[in-house]
Amino acid sequence: MSRTDPKTLREAADAIATGRISSVEMTTDALERADRSQPHLNAFIEIERDAALDAAQAADEARSRGLPLGVLHGVPLAHKDMFDRAAKITGCGSKIRADHVAAETSTVIQRLESAGALQIGRLNMSEFAMGPTGHNAHHGRAINPVDPARITAGSSSGSGAAVGGGVVLAALGSDTGGSIRLPAACCGVVGIKPTQGRVSRHGAMPLSFSQDCIGPLARTVEDAYLLLQLISGVDGRDPTCCNIPTPAALTTEIATMRIGLGGGVFADALSGDVATAMEDMARLLRPVCRSVEPVLPPDLSHVAELANVVAMSEAGAVHFDALRRRPEDFGPQVRMRLAQAIAIPAPVYLRALQIRVIMLEEMLRTVFSACDLLIVPTMPFLPPLASEVDVGAGATMNRIISAMTAFTRPFSFLGLPVVTLPVARSRAGLPVGLQIVAPPWQERRAASLALHIEQALALGPFSAGFSRHEAA
Amino acid sequence: MSRTDPKTLREAADAIATGRISSVEMTTDALERADRSQPHLNAFIEIERDAALDAAQAADEARSRGLPLGVLHGVPLAHKDMFDRAAKITGCGSKIRADHVAAETSTVIQRLESAGALQIGRLNMSEFAMGPTGHNAHHGRAINPVDPARITAGSSSGSGAAVGGGVVLAALGSDTGGSIRLPAACCGVVGIKPTQGRVSRHGAMPLSFSQDCIGPLARTVEDAYLLLQLISGVDGRDPTCCNIPTPAALTTEIATMRIGLGGGVFADALSGDVATAMEDMARLLRPVCRSVEPVLPPDLSHVAELANVVAMSEAGAVHFDALRRRPEDFGPQVRMRLAQAIAIPAPVYLRALQIRVIMLEEMLRTVFSACDLLIVPTMPFLPPLASEVDVGAGATMNRIISAMTAFTRPFSFLGLPVVTLPVARSRAGLPVGLQIVAPPWQERRAASLALHIEQALALGPFSAGFSRHEAA
Repeated sequence: MSRTDPKTLREAADAIATGRISSVEMTTDALERADRSQPHLNAFIEIERDAALDAAQAADEARSRGLPLGVLHGVPLAHKDMFDRAAKITGCGSKIRADHVAAETSTVIQRLESAGALQIGRLNMSEFAMGPTGHNAHHGRAINPVDPARITAGSSSGSGAAVGGGVVLAALGSDTGGSIRLPAACCGVVGIKPTQGRVSRHGAMPLSFSQDCIGPLARTVEDAYLLLQLISGVDGRDPTCCNIPTPAALTTEIATMRIGLGGGVFADALSGDVATAMEDMARLLRPVCRSVEPVLPPDLSHVAELANVVAMSEAGAVHFDALRRRPEDFGPQVRMRLAQAIAIPAPVYLRALQIRVIMLEEMLRTVFSACDLLIVPTMPFLPPLASEVDVGAGATMNRIISAMTAFTRPFSFLGLPVVTLPVARSRAGLPVGLQIVAPPWQERRAASLALHIEQALALGPFSAGFSRHEAA
Repeated sequence: MSRTDPKTLREAADAIATGRISSVEMTTDALERADRSQPHLNAFIEIERDAALDAAQAADEARSRGLPLGVLHGVPLAHKDMFDRAAKITGCGSKIRADHVAAETSTVIQRLESAGALQIGRLNMSEFAMGPTGHNAHHGRAINPVDPARITAGSSSGSGAAVGGGVVLAALGSDTGGSIRLPAACCGVVGIKPTQGRVSRHGAMPLSFSQDCIGPLARTVEDAYLLLQLISGVDGRDPTCCNIPTPAALTTEIATMRIGLGGGVFADALSGDVATAMEDMARLLRPVCRSVEPVLPPDLSHVAELANVVAMSEAGAVHFDALRRRPEDFGPQVRMRLAQAIAIPAPVYLRALQIRVIMLEEMLRTVFSACDLLIVPTMPFLPPLASEVDVGAGATMNRIISAMTAFTRPFSFLGLPVVTLPVARSRAGLPVGLQIVAPPWQERRAASLALHIEQALALGPFSAGFSRHEAA
């Protein structure tokens, strides 16, 4: 995005509301960025030019008729290809559902539409949101806008690429084990995985209903939090969605906060850049927070296995019929993982859910009595090279994939809210992301600290972006 | 019970409240009946004489001090051995938990205690509520008070025997696939399996949390419904318990009711007595209800298998550790069934839960659009002989056991409320029970029809009972 383009959602909405830019102009720009970036980023599964321009025109007409405007009136966004819209395709990054036309609009999209936002296309994702690298056997992987040799991570790969690459200001993703946070960290943007139960999943593709969370990726903390607010809140169509308000304003009042720095597994085997980022963060916060101390988490050594048991059992149920009828239409990695689900005994699955309750109690009792917010790296290392995690990469691949999710999965399993934000650059310019983990329902607390950090660091965008003006 | 003893819970509470009988007298009588019946009925796992008399004395003292009296003030009851009471044993009919002392009192017992009821002992049950015949490898089976050669059925075997045998006026049981309704039918009493979610399970032994329901067995419809009302209602300690009121008064206004008579599987292969009871019921209701018509249920052919998958998966999770550590302490039948649970794949379990939702929608759309209440037999035949369902009975055993639950399991799986009541005697004097099935939360409608039928038939008790006077 160039300097003349709006840099935040509020700026964008303001520009449209005041008539400085029309929605059609802004949407045309976004579509041009999408077109131009597509060969380099592969962020989109489909760019929906006509529908987007129609929506933009309607937005401009509504404004000219003096109708009341939502907080995102006329602002173009794009979302992971897994949120239903009536009479449109939701492909879920798959071949199996490539032509699936939804009957009804998902709650999150409905809420964004009520706020006036529009959508310029469906973003790339790992097939059925399975797989943390962002590889996709059907659509190809999205490309990291910071360094094309690196993965975007996944499963919200297109959301990371499109937001990190400056194609749109924000995008929805989903996170079952790290699928918002990993692409946010790898592409140098902000991501929020909300508390399990804050955001309705009605009309969203299920992967593992015990862990699936919908949330935003955005270029600033305030934009991400704004999107979270808009999509949050009780919904009669999703009985697991709770009636807990998402308070509006963030605060940079962090003087009373006790900050925990994740010890134990979260401090082990960190790459140099990540370890340095954690040390720098401690130095940054120590003068301004009430305390900044290492905090030892409870034993999380089996959490990856338990989270996987739950995720694969539930995914196995979702894809049960397709696995029997069209096994050849799954990508080989996804098919292999789903096939293993059938070997998980039901009592083992239920036990994993029981253990989750015990682990959450332990986490609250130990970690969140010692601190108000816990900071841990989003990944133990810099964004991996695509070649390291390709199917052909053998044993390294499995090791890296499992290490990639080691710091994100525990908080998915426990349902805790997390904000991830970029806090440093490696010498090669790669982003380092840290997670701010909060107790249940305390997204605002985590986002407030993230806002303080963002303002203190003023890192700026990690990728040059695909602006109209640069290309001209 | 002799003619001078109170015949209903309200009569009993009235007699105490007005001072006609003291709680100590009434409780002493009940304890004597319990002692005297025990060699014949084996209804109790433990008779708690001292605690019961202490409670009765406290009740009498409270009354003499003019304290406000609950609706069951001083009335002696007894319950299935699976509801926790602080610092007392809950044995669950097992060896594994034979000495398990509870830390806290279960919600249902707390509510009955708040109403002033006391408890004279822990009633026999199938081990861990597994098994519909009422056999118990550790405590021996409870004996049917109508005919000692017949089973009480289970798993609330002691509740059926104690209420049917006139030892207490009412008892709590639990029903996961028929465990209240089958003993009620076999012992000639009334039973209510409430809607899934009406009664808190906090502090009650879990078997299959997706299907477990706690409810009453009693000698009259009004008594059963009174007990249901007392134990119902939202409870912060059981998040699955819903905030749906249980309306107080029953009505015999049934003129507007459309009655469905279960066709299809529910009319197949009925024994002569049961078929006759259904025909007589149609004749009884036709002149007084708006309509009485056969109603074809949706295809329920796999419901037993699905219900079993869910029940065994969940029971397998409950008993996971004990199965590994103390397999020898389970009864052989229970151990065998639990061992099979480990072979149920988690996706198959989750699919069964998904199919349940579809089947419930189908049941509501087809059956409960055609009628307001559905009447089906509780069992397709008269109470079986114990010898027919003994472990030694071979193939007959399995066939009878599965046929026994064929009419009760569907409504457990679908979570629907059911009242079972005795409606006829066979030539040999054995009770025939029918189920009145209602849409979710319509217990009152079902119980109102049951009350009308009870009054129209005036069948009277099926067993002579173990009264003080008869024995004297």
